[in-house]
Amino acid sequence: MIRLTRSFLFFWCLAATMVTATAAEIQPVKYVFLFIGDGMSFPQQQMAEAFVQKTENRGLLLNHAFPYRAITSTYAADAFITESAAAATAIACGVKTNNGMIAMAPNGDRLETVAELAKKNGRKVGIISSVTINHATPAAFYAHNVSRGNMYEIGLDLVASGFDYFGGGGLDRPNDTGASAYRGNIYDLAKEAGYTVARTEAEIKALAPGVGKVFAVGNTAALDYAMDSNNTGVRLPDFTRQAIELLDNPNGFFMMVEGGKIDWACHANDGAAALFDIIEFDKAIAMAFEFAEKHPGDVLIVVTGDHETGALTLKNPGSSQIHVTLLANQKVSYDQLSSLTRRAIRENGEEGTFEQIQPFITDMCGLVFTGTSRAGNLVLTAAEVTELENSFATSKAAVLANQSAGQNLLAQTMMRLLNNKSGLYWSSGDHSALPVQTSAWGNQAEQVIHGMRENTDIGKRLKQAVGSSPSTRRVALAP
Amino acid sequence: MIRLTRSFLFFWCLAATMVTATAAEIQPVKYVFLFIGDGMSFPQQQMAEAFVQKTENRGLLLNHAFPYRAITSTYAADAFITESAAAATAIACGVKTNNGMIAMAPNGDRLETVAELAKKNGRKVGIISSVTINHATPAAFYAHNVSRGNMYEIGLDLVASGFDYFGGGGLDRPNDTGASAYRGNIYDLAKEAGYTVARTEAEIKALAPGVGKVFAVGNTAALDYAMDSNNTGVRLPDFTRQAIELLDNPNGFFMMVEGGKIDWACHANDGAAALFDIIEFDKAIAMAFEFAEKHPGDVLIVVTGDHETGALTLKNPGSSQIHVTLLANQKVSYDQLSSLTRRAIRENGEEGTFEQIQPFITDMCGLVFTGTSRAGNLVLTAAEVTELENSFATSKAAVLANQSAGQNLLAQTMMRLLNNKSGLYWSSGDHSALPVQTSAWGNQAEQVIHGMRENTDIGKRLKQAVGSSPSTRRVALAP
Repeated sequence: MIRLTRSFLFFWCLAATMVTATAAEIQPVKYVFLFIGDGMSFPQQQMAEAFVQKTENRGLLLNHAFPYRAITSTYAADAFITESAAAATAIACGVKTNNGMIAMAPNGDRLETVAELAKKNGRKVGIISSVTINHATPAAFYAHNVSRGNMYEIGLDLVASGFDYFGGGGLDRPNDTGASAYRGNIYDLAKEAGYTVARTEAEIKALAPGVGKVFAVGNTAALDYAMDSNNTGVRLPDFTRQAIELLDNPNGFFMMVEGGKIDWACHANDGAAALFDIIEFDKAIAMAFEFAEKHPGDVLIVVTGDHETGALTLKNPGSSQIHVTLLANQKVSYDQLSSLTRRAIRENGEEGTFEQIQPFITDMCGLVFTGTSRAGNLVLTAAEVTELENSFATSKAAVLANQSAGQNLLAQTMMRLLNNKSGLYWSSGDHSALPVQTSAWGNQAEQVIHGMRENTDIGKRLKQAVGSSPSTRRVALAP
Repeated sequence: MIRLTRSFLFFWCLAATMVTATAAEIQPVKYVFLFIGDGMSFPQQQMAEAFVQKTENRGLLLNHAFPYRAITSTYAADAFITESAAAATAIACGVKTNNGMIAMAPNGDRLETVAELAKKNGRKVGIISSVTINHATPAAFYAHNVSRGNMYEIGLDLVASGFDYFGGGGLDRPNDTGASAYRGNIYDLAKEAGYTVARTEAEIKALAPGVGKVFAVGNTAALDYAMDSNNTGVRLPDFTRQAIELLDNPNGFFMMVEGGKIDWACHANDGAAALFDIIEFDKAIAMAFEFAEKHPGDVLIVVTGDHETGALTLKNPGSSQIHVTLLANQKVSYDQLSSLTRRAIRENGEEGTFEQIQPFITDMCGLVFTGTSRAGNLVLTAAEVTELENSFATSKAAVLANQSAGQNLLAQTMMRLLNNKSGLYWSSGDHSALPVQTSAWGNQAEQVIHGMRENTDIGKRLKQAVGSSPSTRRVALAP
C-alpha cells in the first residue's frame, strides 16, 4: 500500500539539493604528496591491515594515520568499470575521461594535470612508480595521449615535461623504432634534455641535492615485488625519500608515488605479493610523515586507490575468522612461482610423479600433505590434494609437450589454495566496480575530503593545493 | 635497500597519535532516525544506484542525500566477519561483542541500547523491520540475550521494553512452549502489557494517534520481498510513515528502521530481490526526509549497513560495462522462483524435456534460447544452455524422486545466469568482511560522521543524540 504522501521524486530533489554544500577552496600548501595504490580498495587494505596487526601488533599508516577519509567512486566517462588510465586522468586532472585515455578529455582535448600546474606555479615535481614509469598511472601526470598503449610517445612526453624527478621502474619500449614519432632512445633523449639518467643502484644512491633533473628509473622495467626483493635494490620508500631530499626547495613540490605492482599482483590473484607490496607502499607513506614532522603545517598527504583489482573478498566458508598470516608461507611471487613450478616439473620429467612434486609444493606455499586439516592450518583436505594432483597432471602434460595452455595450472592451484586457506577469495583477473578509500592528512586535509565522492574531486582539490603561493601557515598538524 | 632513516614504528605512532582528535560531543536532537540496510555494503548500493539511474534517471537518496559519509568497519569482538547480532549490538550499544550475542558484552554484561536510553530520556521509541521483529537486528535494540537464537525470550524482552511502536514482520516462534521461560503466546502477553496488537492490513491502517503502544507486525513472519509484493500490503515505507505519525510528541523520538530482507536476498544470491528491497528501503528513508522538511533543525538521519552479504562483485568479464537493468526480467524472488520451478518440473513429469521447460525459463528470468548472445542482451550462449540443460536434468531427477538435494539447481542456475548477464557475481552465501558506508544528514550530521571508523562509533554518537534535552536549535538543514 506504499503511499508516498508527496512525490518521492520531489523529496529526492529536495534532499539531494541539500547536500550541494560546496567545499571551501583549498589554499596552496607548500609540500603536496599524492600516493596511489593501484588496484587497492577496501579488501586489499583489510588484508594487509589484518596481517600487520597479527605479525607486528600495529596497524597500517594507510588506514590509521589519516583522520579524514572519503568513499570515492571510480567509474570512467564511458565505462562502469574503469582502468588505470581513465582513473589516473580523473585523479591527475579532475576530469572523467574514457578508458584508456591519458590526460585527455573524451573529445581529445588536452587536460592540464596537477603536476603540470604545480610545475607552472614554480614548484618542483616528482613522479615515482613501482611499475614502468610510462605506465598508465604515472603517465597521466605528465603525458597526453589517446591511448595508454602508445608507450613510446608517452616516453617522449615524459622527457618534454621537464619534471624534476622520475623514479621507480624503467621505461617500457624506450627504443620503439616502429613508432611513427620515433626520434631515438628515450633514455638518450632524456640525457639530451638535461636529465641525469641513473639506472643502477650505485648511480641512484649517488644522486645528491643540486644534481638537477633526475631520471632514476632503475635497471628493470618494473621494480621486483617486495616479497621477491629481499629488501635489496632501490625500493619505493627509497625513491620517495630521495625525491623528497632532491626536490625540497623554497617553492615547495608536488610528488606522486604509485604502488603500481599491487595491481599487478591482484591481476595475478597473488595475495602474498599484493600484501607485501601494500606494506612497502605504507612505508613509502611513512617517508612523507617523516618529512612532515620537520615541516609542520606545510604538508598535505593524500592517499587513494584508482580501482579494485581481482574482485577480492575476505571470507571463510563456515567460519567467521580468516588467517591472513598464512600468506607468509608463499616464498615467491606468482611470477617466480610459475616458472619455478614449470622447471620442477621439467626436471622430474616423464617419470615425475605427484608424490615427487609434493615437497616442492610444501616448500613454495607451505601446503602440507599429512595431518589433520582444520581452520588456520596448512594441511590439505583430501579434495584439495585431488585438485593439486589433477592440476599437476595437466601442467606436466603441457610442460613436457611445450604446450602453453595448462603449464601454470599447478602453480595457480597451489597459490589459490593458500589464498583460500588465508581467507582470500578472488573472483576476477580484472578490475571490479568497488569504490576506493581516499584519505588525507595535514594542512586542510579536512577540506580536501569534505564532500568528496568522485575520483575527479581529488584532482580538482589537489590543483587548488598546488597553487603558486605555498601556504606556510602554521596550522596544527592534528585536525 | 630500504632504510627508514628513523624507526618506522616511531612514525607510525607519531602519525597515529595525530589523528586521535576526538569528535565533539553530539547535542541531543529531537527526532533521531537510524536506518540499517542489513547485508548492504558498497556493491549492493552500487547495483541499486546503477538501476535507478538507468530506469528512473535519478540516484538513490541512500547515496546522494547524505553529505557526510564514513567507511565503517564491521568486525565483531571475537570474529573478523560479523553476523547481524554482534553488528546490531555495536550499532545499538556502541560496544563490540561476540557473534550471536544480543545487547550483551562478551562477558555477559547487559548493555544499554540507544533505544532504551532514548526511552529513559522521555522519548518515544519505534522499532521497524522487514524481517521478523525478534530477529537479531531489531532485537539488539530492545532485548538482551547470549544468543540470537532464543527467539521466545527475545519476544519477552520486546514486550517488557515498553517501546512505543513495533512494526514490520511478525514474531518468529511466538508460542514456543518448549522455551524454559515460557509463559504464554507473546502476542497475548503484548496485549496484557497494554499493546494494541494489529496484525492485518486493515487493523494496521486503522491505528491513529492516541492509540498508545503499538505492536503492528503484520500477519506473516517477514514482509514479502518488495518484488513479490505488487505494492500491496503494509510495506516498510508505510510502517515508517505511520510510526512517525504515532510517535511525534514534544519530547521527540528515536526510530530504527531495518531493511532486513536485503540480507536475506543476498544470502540467496538473488540480485533482483535485493535490488527492489534496497529501492523500497530508500523510500522508507524518504519518509524521514518528508518529516524533516516540516521540522527544520530537529532531525538527524543516520543510515548504515551492518555487513556485506554474498560477497557480491560488480564486473563483467571482458567488458567495462554492466547491465543491471536486465535484473528486472526476473519475475519473482528466488523464494518463489524455486517453488515455481519445482512445480513446473513436477507438472511436466517423467516425460518432461528440457525443450518443454524453456518457455518457463524465459518467462521467469527473461533468458532467451535463440538469437545472438552479446553483452547487454539475454540470449544464452551455447555453454549457458548446456549448463541449464544439465541443471534441469539434476533438478528433474531430484524433484521426481523427492530427493531434496538438487531440486533447486535449475532455479539457482537460471537466477545466477541472469545475475551474471546483469554484471552481478556472488561468491558466497554468507557474509564477507567488506566495510560498509555510514552516512548522516541533519542536525550535527557532520559531527556524527567526523572521524567515524567503527560500527561502535554509531552507537556511541547516537546515544549522545538521544539525550534528555532534545535540541530545537534552528540550525540550517544544509551542512
